[in-house]
Amino acid sequence: MSDDTDRNARHADKMKKVQAARQTMMATRTAEKGLLIVHTGPGKGKSTAAFGMAVRAMGHGMKVGIVQFVKGAMTTGERVIFDAFPDLVSFRPMGEGFTWDTQDRARDIATARTAWDEVCRLIDDPDIAVVIADELNIVLRYDYLPLDEVLAAVTARAPMKHIVVTGRNAPDALIEAADLVTEMTQVKHPFRGGIKAQAGIEF
Amino acid sequence: MSDDTDRNARHADKMKKVQAARQTMMATRTAEKGLLIVHTGPGKGKSTAAFGMAVRAMGHGMKVGIVQFVKGAMTTGERVIFDAFPDLVSFRPMGEGFTWDTQDRARDIATARTAWDEVCRLIDDPDIAVVIADELNIVLRYDYLPLDEVLAAVTARAPMKHIVVTGRNAPDALIEAADLVTEMTQVKHPFRGGIKAQAGIEF
Repeated sequence: MSDDTDRNARHADKMKKVQAARQTMMATRTAEKGLLIVHTGPGKGKSTAAFGMAVRAMGHGMKVGIVQFVKGAMTTGERVIFDAFPDLVSFRPMGEGFTWDTQDRARDIATARTAWDEVCRLIDDPDIAVVIADELNIVLRYDYLPLDEVLAAVTARAPMKHIVVTGRNAPDALIEAADLVTEMTQVKHPFRGGIKAQAGIEF
Repeated sequence: MSDDTDRNARHADKMKKVQAARQTMMATRTAEKGLLIVHTGPGKGKSTAAFGMAVRAMGHGMKVGIVQFVKGAMTTGERVIFDAFPDLVSFRPMGEGFTWDTQDRARDIATARTAWDEVCRLIDDPDIAVVIADELNIVLRYDYLPLDEVLAAVTARAPMKHIVVTGRNAPDALIEAADLVTEMTQVKHPFRGGIKAQAGIEF
């Protein structure tokens, strides 16, 4: 038997075992439920992955409601594509800009309340399969909304309702309540090299 | 002055300083360039964020080419949405399934080569703004493609070409060559609670 044939045979044998182990593991996963998903951490991709999930769900004909708690110029691109599917996705930028732009705490709190009311409406709407509360964690971080109220609402969701919450500094209690939590860690960022925010990448 | 008025005034003052610091920082970021972006780490969201970036770029009329090195059942949802924009995105699942399903190393290597040839074609095509090599890191991890060849091709890309590479265990040399690297870390995963892969979430 040549070296290569031997290597391929060992590979096939190993992969058979991996496949068997995976099948055993997958067989234990039979339950379905609406997930509370949190994307947090200082790295990029938290909102982008949430919007990618929106696209995935929309492709299955599932309706998605997106509320943005902090409006930036960062969603121009996605909006164009989402707007082509008005029956499948609603996209509401409720924030009035970053809080360092408004410089008005009372107004920021009122805006957060309006956005949260819309999230609650989406959570209660049986037609909506996936609710995305984009940058909700930032609002919680600033104490613009009571954490207890948010926890109560997401915990009381219908059994098959998926909720995705994004933003750095997710509160511990939200992580505790969640089913799926991913932390995006920044390894390297081009801003450090003097590169500006670019169309198709950051917005 | 009431406590609340006082707090709001201090908030406004602090936010003015944050805003000024940000404006100074943003003023140093003037360059544009095509980015080599890597999504790695064991957590979820690597491919999802890449597909979210595709949607963002498509919304700006930028053309996107996606090559999937490991084909699973995991892209059903996105495909439906992408297929609505045939002029803006090409999506080629080149892999034949997870390597533990094929159990055939020689065939996996041949498939990786075909997929890589398609990535090189997209990198060389001046009409394509964003190239996504989904799960390329897995193929590199298995040594199914020479790392040197991949590094040479991504490094020699046109100045404004963006390339996104996903997959856990990104090679150090690829991270070194990249402009933007995010590591997705798994904090909590529902499979551990016996929840199966669900439509709109995992595929």
